[in-house]
Amino acid sequence: MSDIQRASRERHRYEDLAGFVEDLVENGTLRPGMRAPSLRAIAHQKQASLSTALQAYRLLEDRGVLEARPKSGFYVATCRPSKFDTPAVSCPPDTPTKVTVPSGVLQLLHHAADPNLVPLGCAIPSAELLAAGRLDRFLARAARTRGKQYNIYTEPRGDAALRTEVSRRAARWGQALNPSDIAVTCGCTEALSLALRAVTRRGDIVAIESPTYFGLLQVLESLGLKALELPTNARDGLQVDALERALKSKPVKACLLSSGFNNPLGSSLSNAGKRQVLDLLRRHEVPLIEDDIYGDIHFGPDRPIPFMAIAPEADILYCSSFSKTVAPGYRVGWVVTPRHMQSVLEAKFGLTLCGPALPQAALADFLSSGGYDSHLRRIRRVFADNIDRMSRTIERTFPSETRVTRPAGGFVLWLELPEPVNARVLFEQALEQDICIAPGDIFTTSDRYANCMRLSCGHTWDKRIQNSLEILADLVHTQSKRA
Amino acid sequence: MSDIQRASRERHRYEDLAGFVEDLVENGTLRPGMRAPSLRAIAHQKQASLSTALQAYRLLEDRGVLEARPKSGFYVATCRPSKFDTPAVSCPPDTPTKVTVPSGVLQLLHHAADPNLVPLGCAIPSAELLAAGRLDRFLARAARTRGKQYNIYTEPRGDAALRTEVSRRAARWGQALNPSDIAVTCGCTEALSLALRAVTRRGDIVAIESPTYFGLLQVLESLGLKALELPTNARDGLQVDALERALKSKPVKACLLSSGFNNPLGSSLSNAGKRQVLDLLRRHEVPLIEDDIYGDIHFGPDRPIPFMAIAPEADILYCSSFSKTVAPGYRVGWVVTPRHMQSVLEAKFGLTLCGPALPQAALADFLSSGGYDSHLRRIRRVFADNIDRMSRTIERTFPSETRVTRPAGGFVLWLELPEPVNARVLFEQALEQDICIAPGDIFTTSDRYANCMRLSCGHTWDKRIQNSLEILADLVHTQSKRA
Repeated sequence: MSDIQRASRERHRYEDLAGFVEDLVENGTLRPGMRAPSLRAIAHQKQASLSTALQAYRLLEDRGVLEARPKSGFYVATCRPSKFDTPAVSCPPDTPTKVTVPSGVLQLLHHAADPNLVPLGCAIPSAELLAAGRLDRFLARAARTRGKQYNIYTEPRGDAALRTEVSRRAARWGQALNPSDIAVTCGCTEALSLALRAVTRRGDIVAIESPTYFGLLQVLESLGLKALELPTNARDGLQVDALERALKSKPVKACLLSSGFNNPLGSSLSNAGKRQVLDLLRRHEVPLIEDDIYGDIHFGPDRPIPFMAIAPEADILYCSSFSKTVAPGYRVGWVVTPRHMQSVLEAKFGLTLCGPALPQAALADFLSSGGYDSHLRRIRRVFADNIDRMSRTIERTFPSETRVTRPAGGFVLWLELPEPVNARVLFEQALEQDICIAPGDIFTTSDRYANCMRLSCGHTWDKRIQNSLEILADLVHTQSKRA
Repeated sequence: MSDIQRASRERHRYEDLAGFVEDLVENGTLRPGMRAPSLRAIAHQKQASLSTALQAYRLLEDRGVLEARPKSGFYVATCRPSKFDTPAVSCPPDTPTKVTVPSGVLQLLHHAADPNLVPLGCAIPSAELLAAGRLDRFLARAARTRGKQYNIYTEPRGDAALRTEVSRRAARWGQALNPSDIAVTCGCTEALSLALRAVTRRGDIVAIESPTYFGLLQVLESLGLKALELPTNARDGLQVDALERALKSKPVKACLLSSGFNNPLGSSLSNAGKRQVLDLLRRHEVPLIEDDIYGDIHFGPDRPIPFMAIAPEADILYCSSFSKTVAPGYRVGWVVTPRHMQSVLEAKFGLTLCGPALPQAALADFLSSGGYDSHLRRIRRVFADNIDRMSRTIERTFPSETRVTRPAGGFVLWLELPEPVNARVLFEQALEQDICIAPGDIFTTSDRYANCMRLSCGHTWDKRIQNSLEILADLVHTQSKRA
């Protein structure tokens, strides 16, 4: 065998080996974020040399199938290469708009509680996935043994043990919270509402990402606030230069941004981007309300660092909840603010007085028992897998001009459909087939995103969801052909 | 024995017998609302004739110790005669006031959660009395067996089974409710907040009773509403003629009244008075928000009839909760409105999205199991007894110029102290002795009720509470002497 022959054979060997591993990824044996077989193991298994295995993995790295992590080996990439482009940077109008939530949002929530519909509409993880069984047992135990103790109005900030647990968790990402700076709320919705109340008045302008979660728009509407939607990139989040222009030209009274994996784009600002934002807001003396509800659902190794952890001294009101990770049914969220706690508590007293005591006690017990982290590891894998399978199915079935996000966390996909397609029409058509989706126009106060939709990947992948996507694809093809 | 001698002896006999029964009431053997021994039994026991026993009971009826109920016999009066007058009709200013809640209210709520203080401040029944053990077991069972099913966002109106149970209960007092006209809320506070949002805008005038629950004032403040406080009588509630004058002279946008046993006076409008109010509001096209949170705690045989039951077709938003009767810790209330449900749901979506699911499911199970009524009978007796004992102690120890309410339901007393006494000073002095009271000035938006205080009778009577009242009496005496 000549050297050339040997080199050619070797090339075939590492390409074969790469193809073998890529197939494992393609057919789902290896899932995004999973560790790939070690070089030694794969070389042994395929009777190749270590250097051939390394060449194969380098090739897969180039193709975006694997990613190398220093001192840890190769992992299946969480952001897989896609045939489809990601959505373009959004271009909302640069004028503040009095928020009026489009009709149909309540209908969507109503559908979310209907078990007969395929649940691609609301961003609610399936109860199966969340497996809150352990939490429920803590609730049952608290109700049995401490019901009397907890049949009270809690103190205005909420259960002290829960606030301690929340501050303990924050310490992991370097955030030193004083439990007395935390107020427990009825989910993240009440947290955002209280935070906005503390720093704005009716008619004020609030800068937000665009597109944005329709529930946030409802909060803004209920407070009579104006929304200034800012251009946001599906890859790296808010366009900081747009924020700068807005702060210079308009009397923005507060800025409301997600800490990571914003809903619906799933994009996150880098830490450098966050520092720029913080610097801008400090210079213009504008408080930041940050929504960290998706922060714990990261597919990569690192959690997005909250703004408040980056700049503990800044004027920030931090909001989060357990609704996306363990218990939407418990409605427990929290707001952290060293500076505005008094206003927050007064507003809470006028809204809900306080939250139910036993669910808070159960969550405190659950967190202190230490099971939350292994639970998070599990659901991160499942959500990443769901997003991957859904993306693959969309690539296979939707028109090739479709643009899809590639989120590195959370559990929603945002689709930009070929222009003539109207997502509101699609929503109605899908509903007739017992499929619920979220049409794009409810994610803005302006007249935009009519050709967009959000799909929830919060339910375990199954044949029914796959079929629904195929039906959606057919509906989209039909609409785009008609045009 | 001459006829005169016999007549004199008979008079002594029935007076003796009356004295014997009055002692039983005085020493607490017979409690308000309890059935007195039958005429036959007492005549037999005291070896008197039936007619003598009847004479004795008629005497006690004249003295207000007993009350006769048709076809049922004699009962210990729930409104006992008192040495002290009831408070005068309140005279709030007749101008609407932008609501600013006085400081100290949050401090009061904070104290309410402190088990080291004698709890006379907040109107929260003791967990001991409420004995929510059965409810807690339903919660434990629901969490164990149906946790997965309930780990969801409920539909916007809340748990359907609970709404059905609420409408079933209302049917008992002749109120036909459609469960789809009910929205479950986070306690009565959120119900009132949603109801006000549905029919008013910032700056509008809302007519309310005076004095009024400070939590309601906080709700009004958080919505930027103006309060028009109306004169209210400690015996029969709102002065209807004052409402009429207000409606004629001011652009009142909503009227918020309690259905019965208002907080803090404990007074109720008669059904005739309610009809007058409804007629006035209909003519002026002003919606009524009614707060029925104390309706189930009536000491007499009849429950106050809600306005909505009297006039189902009127523009009414009905609010209530389980916080005063079984579970303050569960934070479950509801608002009923056939007319404004869409606005209510939209507002709720912007405030709290929805409430926690399992506590609602547990309450539905508890109600359908049928134990609620026997529980209500028990706590009515206990609250009536607490109020009676507290009133007696006040009469025995406070200055004779003190005026005290004589509520026929609920579990609070309102005291008007001799003029120079300042209840805010009293509040601070009492706190130093580990006693919490509610100073009168937090029950108004005007500069009034500085010499008033509210005492909660929601905790089982014991030596500690009796001692606290004696300490309060000493403090009041000292303040009034200093003047």
